[in-house]
Amino acid sequence: MSDVIIAGIGQTPVGEHWEISLRELALDAIEAARKDAGDLRPQALYAGNMLAPSISSQAHLGTLIADFAGMTGIEAASIEAAGASGGAALRQAYLAVVAEAVDVALVIGVEKMTDMTGSQVEAAIATAIDGDYEAAQGLTPTAQAALLMRRYMHEFGVEHDCFASFPLVAHANGEGNPNAMFRKAITSDMYQRAGMVSDPLNMFDVAPGADGAAALILSRGDLLPASFSHPLVRISGSSMASDTLALHDRPDPLAFDAVRISVERACRQAGILPGDVDLFELYDAYSIFAAISLEAAGFAGRGQGWQMAQDGQLALQGNLPIATFGGLKARGNPGGATGVYQAVEAALQLRGQAGQNQVQGARRALIQCLGGPASAAVTHVLERLDS
Amino acid sequence: MSDVIIAGIGQTPVGEHWEISLRELALDAIEAARKDAGDLRPQALYAGNMLAPSISSQAHLGTLIADFAGMTGIEAASIEAAGASGGAALRQAYLAVVAEAVDVALVIGVEKMTDMTGSQVEAAIATAIDGDYEAAQGLTPTAQAALLMRRYMHEFGVEHDCFASFPLVAHANGEGNPNAMFRKAITSDMYQRAGMVSDPLNMFDVAPGADGAAALILSRGDLLPASFSHPLVRISGSSMASDTLALHDRPDPLAFDAVRISVERACRQAGILPGDVDLFELYDAYSIFAAISLEAAGFAGRGQGWQMAQDGQLALQGNLPIATFGGLKARGNPGGATGVYQAVEAALQLRGQAGQNQVQGARRALIQCLGGPASAAVTHVLERLDS
Repeated sequence: MSDVIIAGIGQTPVGEHWEISLRELALDAIEAARKDAGDLRPQALYAGNMLAPSISSQAHLGTLIADFAGMTGIEAASIEAAGASGGAALRQAYLAVVAEAVDVALVIGVEKMTDMTGSQVEAAIATAIDGDYEAAQGLTPTAQAALLMRRYMHEFGVEHDCFASFPLVAHANGEGNPNAMFRKAITSDMYQRAGMVSDPLNMFDVAPGADGAAALILSRGDLLPASFSHPLVRISGSSMASDTLALHDRPDPLAFDAVRISVERACRQAGILPGDVDLFELYDAYSIFAAISLEAAGFAGRGQGWQMAQDGQLALQGNLPIATFGGLKARGNPGGATGVYQAVEAALQLRGQAGQNQVQGARRALIQCLGGPASAAVTHVLERLDS
Repeated sequence: MSDVIIAGIGQTPVGEHWEISLRELALDAIEAARKDAGDLRPQALYAGNMLAPSISSQAHLGTLIADFAGMTGIEAASIEAAGASGGAALRQAYLAVVAEAVDVALVIGVEKMTDMTGSQVEAAIATAIDGDYEAAQGLTPTAQAALLMRRYMHEFGVEHDCFASFPLVAHANGEGNPNAMFRKAITSDMYQRAGMVSDPLNMFDVAPGADGAAALILSRGDLLPASFSHPLVRISGSSMASDTLALHDRPDPLAFDAVRISVERACRQAGILPGDVDLFELYDAYSIFAAISLEAAGFAGRGQGWQMAQDGQLALQGNLPIATFGGLKARGNPGGATGVYQAVEAALQLRGQAGQNQVQGARRALIQCLGGPASAAVTHVLERLDS
């Protein structure tokens, strides 16, 4: 089997795009990716989206987008795994290429969350958790993350301030990303004074929901034209795993087993250890998620993920940079598009096209997105090939 | 690459399941399929569903169902392509096995449509068509099918009565299916006197939305235990294609190009011609869809699909039986589960387990489901292997 190469990448700015529709937003990212990829013609399209049926009264997005992008006739489907939808779409596209069902596949992650009021959006987002046993009882994903953070603080004797470095790193990196929603560094003092969202989560512990679209073109390596001009970025590991949907069903809510399992499998496939990667685009929808993800992925001991942030290890110059373009926190979290943004950003790093956000000498990246409270985790290892 | 075998099948009765929840309905089908498959343990789950986010306020179904079925940890995602969701989920599972990402995959199609009132359900179903240019203008899928039927009648000089044989065949076959929603044959006279739904579509031209779940277990053929007791049914062709989402964007609305393309590709992969199949589980959500599908698939000339029905060719004893367990019309149309029901029913035919509905000597089946007005088409060729 030939390598699967990320041959084209595209993204729109993340933010509030009231002036354009869902399909126009998707098209912007697709056109950028197609331009980046040169002459490759996708034979299949996988759309990662979570909220369009609820927020835009629109299902059937795969077909809608293929049609609007002038690719009528090709295979097109939507893939959904809540916040992990973008990563899940990437994985399906990868599998379609590996299975040799198609030579070239397009992944589009798109979400438009700001066309409704906050409470409507919160209800739509709550479809990611257990409807009968959580959402119907009034729980929201944010309140759930607050409970998780409180539990972590209690279990490990950690103060709220210990989480400050996660948004500090994210916002510092967002400053250099022209597509980020927030391009301003924040200080510890700002973190401490931030308004409470859901005790103990404050405003800087929660990534902002946003509009955005990102696209990838995957190709079999042996089909790339001789004229292909970018450094080659290969998908060398791909995995998806699940956990209980409801947080209360887990013997240990602080474990994030789906993260652990999918990282193990993706790294095994890539023939590496997690410690071999040069950056980790993790899923910092909440700062507590970032801390636990670092632990579950094997980078930190239990209850010690926050310390990596405090020690400076996660900054661009650290030994495991995260959120290198701002992460969910500062780039913004466009739901089902997020996993595709992560892949675009990691590809930029591995190509050496990350500008002032460049992780020097980056050759391997781990990217991971989560659905619900890590009820789904999709993990990929991307690797730069030498020409 | 080893064959991909349908090693387990399960289904619930189609109808109104007010007494059980979405997850319980799914579990019933999964348990039946796992029992049917023996000891095979799925490593991935693909859920075909269209309406749960809109009707049940529940996304993230892949994880929800994997969790509830006691398979926490495995890969799980939802696949959506409107009415073609079940077929699209089957295709993704097939690709995952072909790609050797997993050895055994579970496909679950589940839909619960009767928990809401008719107008709410109609709005949810309308997410399958173009939201901005069709649904927002007041068009519904049923009204759209009526326009299509009127156009067909005008273009080919066909009377409404000519479509009667489609529901007649479906209801005749539904009689012998214990899982069918309607188990009563109808007469031409009943068809002629049926109440109008959307002129010229009458009640018998429209398949009923319903609750239901169906499941498949796919396995690499070389991993089946020696004790495996069913005749082997192989997936020998798999394809998915798209068309414009909006009907008005097509130069010829009576062409169903996605049907044509996906049938051609699936048959080419299987090394057969459409005429080589012994039955065709087509997507008779509306009788006009059945007529055009027969034409686009190559079984009838343009404007002549209805004649196959009238000539008796589509009955169980005809040369191309359709809707062998009642089809969408009489078995019922549980949205995103429909494509999985079709595969279960075709597998029963090929195994020779179809009871009084058996198509004698059936060795090859074509199955096809559609999303929107054939804006998406998923086609599979299933084949019985001799032991």
